[in-house]
Formats: sequence, C-alpha cells, structure tokens
Amino acid sequence: VKDPSPGWWEFMIGPGHPIDTSQYFVICVNSLGSCFGSTGPSSIDPATGCPYRLTFPDLTVDDIAASAKLLLNELGIQQLHTLVGPSMGGMSALALLRREPEIASNLILISSAAHATPFAIAMRSLQRDIITSDPKWQQGEYSYQDPPANGVRMARKLGLTTYRSPEEWLVRFGRKKSRNIQNKPFVSEFEIESYLDYNAAKFVGSFDPNCYLYLSRAMDWFDMKENGANLHQALTPIQLDNALVIGVQSDFLIPEWQQKELAVALNEAGTRVEYVALESVQGHDAFLVDEERFAPVVRQHMAKLSTAETA
Amino acid sequence: VKDPSPGWWEFMIGPGHPIDTSQYFVICVNSLGSCFGSTGPSSIDPATGCPYRLTFPDLTVDDIAASAKLLLNELGIQQLHTLVGPSMGGMSALALLRREPEIASNLILISSAAHATPFAIAMRSLQRDIITSDPKWQQGEYSYQDPPANGVRMARKLGLTTYRSPEEWLVRFGRKKSRNIQNKPFVSEFEIESYLDYNAAKFVGSFDPNCYLYLSRAMDWFDMKENGANLHQALTPIQLDNALVIGVQSDFLIPEWQQKELAVALNEAGTRVEYVALESVQGHDAFLVDEERFAPVVRQHMAKLSTAETA
Repeated sequence: VKDPSPGWWEFMIGPGHPIDTSQYFVICVNSLGSCFGSTGPSSIDPATGCPYRLTFPDLTVDDIAASAKLLLNELGIQQLHTLVGPSMGGMSALALLRREPEIASNLILISSAAHATPFAIAMRSLQRDIITSDPKWQQGEYSYQDPPANGVRMARKLGLTTYRSPEEWLVRFGRKKSRNIQNKPFVSEFEIESYLDYNAAKFVGSFDPNCYLYLSRAMDWFDMKENGANLHQALTPIQLDNALVIGVQSDFLIPEWQQKELAVALNEAGTRVEYVALESVQGHDAFLVDEERFAPVVRQHMAKLSTAETA
Repeated sequence: VKDPSPGWWEFMIGPGHPIDTSQYFVICVNSLGSCFGSTGPSSIDPATGCPYRLTFPDLTVDDIAASAKLLLNELGIQQLHTLVGPSMGGMSALALLRREPEIASNLILISSAAHATPFAIAMRSLQRDIITSDPKWQQGEYSYQDPPANGVRMARKLGLTTYRSPEEWLVRFGRKKSRNIQNKPFVSEFEIESYLDYNAAKFVGSFDPNCYLYLSRAMDWFDMKENGANLHQALTPIQLDNALVIGVQSDFLIPEWQQKELAVALNEAGTRVEYVALESVQGHDAFLVDEERFAPVVRQHMAKLSTAETA
C-alpha cells in the first residue's frame, strides 16, 4: 500500500468487501486528462517543458478507454473478469467495450448512461461557463498559485446540486438556519447554503480547472450510438456473459430511465442482465455513500458470478 | 391601453380569455422590489437623490403582499372576487391572505409553494453567489452603464435550467449540434447550450441585478408556517369559499407535492378545493406556455364560480 489515505469507494473494494481483493486482482484506472496521475492539461508537455494547458488535445471518453487498454497491455492482461464503472466510469467501460468487444466477461454499470442528455449537458456547460468566465482563468493560462478559485468554487456548487437529490436535502436540511453565518451578502443563511459552501471550498485547490473543463466536455460528447444506428446495434458486437445495471430513483443528473435503457439494450444484444433500481435518496452520489443498499447488490451479483464459474 | 406591448400571460387574461376582462376588473400588481414600476433597490431614495441599492430595506414576500393591499386601499377595493398567483405570485397571494384573511372569496394557486425547499434555496442562492461574485457587482455599487452583466447572464442560465424540464429538452433538443457555434471555448456546441445563451442574453440589461438579489432572497425566506405551528393552523384563519390549485408533474423547482400540500391544507382549513396535476412537459414555466392544458382548467373553474354566484 503506497498511499494509505482513504479512497472514494472503501466500502465497495477491499478484502472481504463486495468487490473482494482477496479473490480478485482489482485495477482502478485514473482517467486520462485528470490531474491525479494520468497525463492531462496540467501535465508538462515534453516539447515545451511547460504544462499543456489548452494545447492538450481534445479529450473524449473513447481516449480514456484507449488509455486503459494501454495499461492492460502493459500489465499483460488479455481479458478482464468484470469491468465496473459508476457514472463517467460507466461511460468509459462502455467505450472500452466498443473498442474491445471481448475485453471482459462481465460488466457492472452504476448510475451511468449511454449518452449525455441535454439537461446534463446544460448543467455541465454552465459549470464550464462559470470557470472560463472567472477573470483569473486567463484563457487557461492562469497562475497555478492563483487559479480561478472562485469560478471552480461556484462550478462545484452547481455540481453538488446535481449530485444529491431534493428529497435528501428536504429531510437533512429542511429550512434550518446555519449556525455559521458568513459575512456574505445574499448567501449562506440556511444550512443547505453552508453545506454547499463547505463542500465547494474543499474541492477548490484539489482539482486543476483546465482538467475539469476537458473531462466535463468529454462527458457531454459521449454517445454510445456514434458507431451504430441505434443503441442495440452499437452494443451487438460486445461479447459479455453477464451485466449488472444499477440505477437510483432519486438521480436526476443521470436518471433511472437511462439505466433501464442500458439494461434493455444489453439484454437485447445477448447479455444476461440483472437490473436493480434502488430507492436511495442520495441521488447520483448514492453509490459513494449508500453502502446499505449498494453493498448487498454488488456482493450478491459477484457471488453469483463466482458460483457460476465453479459450477 | 397605455402599453400595447404583449405581456407575459396574454392567453390567460383578456376579453374572452379564461380570466375574462369583459367580465372582471383585473388588477396585476408589480412586485415591490422589482424594477418595473414599483419601488425597489434601483429606485431613487428621496433622502439622498441616489438609488437605494443595498440600503433598500430587507424585502420579504409579506412586504410585497402589504404593498398590494395599499394599492387596493388606494383603489377603494375592500374585497376581491379571486386572488390569482402563479409561482412567486402564489406566495404573495398566500402572504396577503395571511395578513387579510377576508380579502378574497376565491384563490387560484399555480406552481406555487407554502415554503421554499432547500433545493430551491440552493439554486437561487447559487444564482445570487454568481451575481455578487462578478467583479463588476462592486458590493451593489455597480455602474448602471456597465452592470455585472456576465454574472446576471450565468445566473439566468441557471434559472432557465430550473424553469423547464429535462423531459422537454430531451424531445426538443436531444443531442443536436448548434448551427451558430460561438467562439467560446468549452461552451455552446449543442443546441441546448445555444438556447441557454440566447435566452440568458435576452434577460441581461432588462433586470436590475440588485432587484434580482432582493426578490430572489425574499422567495427563500418565504414560509407560510411562520405564524402557526403547521400549515393547517397557518391557513385556518383564511376565509375562502373556493380554491383551484394547479401543479405540473415535470416541475422540479416547485414540485407537484408542494401543490398537493397546499391543496390538502386549504381543504382542511375549510376551503372547497379543486386540485389539478397537469402533464405539461415544460416544468415550472408551463403556466406561461402550455395554453392547451392551462387555459381550459382556469376557464372551467372561473365558469363554475360564475355559475355558483348566479344560482
């Protein structure tokens, strides 16, 4: 263990956990374009010795999938037992299967989508507008010591409003007033406002703004149907035995109908599909926090796969 | 007719229209705090000869209701036939009834609410954050020739994403690319993005930013329950004969359950209530555009009231 700090999905992956590292070799690939280890707009361009910034090539979800395949080649892995992807990770998993139809035997998609909807595009486009409108963004040439923090902060706030659900907030915050009223006119009087402020502030400084722009746009561009007349045709070449598709009823960023669409299309393309719609109230983020509902579903599905292989 | 330009609700109000001006004398009150005729932050403070700006007193929906009552006094009107309020107008109607329980015999509430939810507060709070973060806002002391147009533009974009519905945009825009691609990096490639750009640009310059902040915060502050332990108790003093409450299934800013809550509470408080949930896809804005569904409901309700009075 080279990095002992807790990760994003501790309850799901580990020894004895639903995705059991005592049984499987688990590879978690950082996205190409992101600023946490893979090459992205904040990486140094060897040709210039300076960060790529906006000279980084246009990034698509397909590029992210291609980079994952290069890693598998490097590791000498020809086929995966199960490909697992939540949210944008599910898009990357689908893109990898489009490129490499026989790369995996099984697939788990969680709160993902076969294409970005206009509502999701609207939300992400406005986040990008907010960042690029921050005077400190400087057409991507910002100082890394003084980045467009205010734009990133507000873009993150907008993200947070789409990651959870109105239902959760109604129960969790209601109309409670904040105890830590900040000296900001017109903002931060209610607990919901403090929650957004606090969580947005945590994000600022941890994510490179240009990387955020590239990854955000890549999601808008994603459409599994690109190479086929419809989703069924796009999925037909894919050689999967089993798929688990999980949706969350309170997710309004990537709503349940998009999960159902994937489940139906995978099934029509010849995959045995288990489809589960969970009643989590945490919206799109539920897979990160609702251990109670998510852990048993993934655990039982993995056990079924394991039994089928033994039998 | 002193102003011949078309208004916001032409299909609803006029001679022969559902709210029939050949039968009723219709008064439409501009909100206190708004910049279209009533006194607000952009009005001249007689004490200084300069606009009030942020020295304008804190504005509540109750203040807006109180100013409407002053207008009725001025006109010599003691009782109204029907009080009609869509959205924030419904909040104002409820606040007026809280102050003056016998002011009207009938009530029509459309896509309104007894209180602002944390989700609606989050969306409006972020809009205010975006405006007040525009360097040109200058703590409210902006130049009227060079206002914080960029902040207002993005706040309006966010507003637009909450006024319509994901369902409408899916059918209307899907993933169509825009024909007028603007030279803005990371923004404005899809039709949905052009739609937001176009409509946000129309708004900039037409609404004073400080007025926007005051009115937006007034909605967050609104809670009909303030003077009672629950909504039933808050509504009990109100002396209404009939109420029509209309909700829209695709409205996620002020969702259908908030309309149902009002209908149930008004009924329990002794009002005859007609509750209608419409299947409009236009979300919160439906009452402004879905003539086909809204006009007959209001027309028939008004006819019933008229018949009951004749009988």
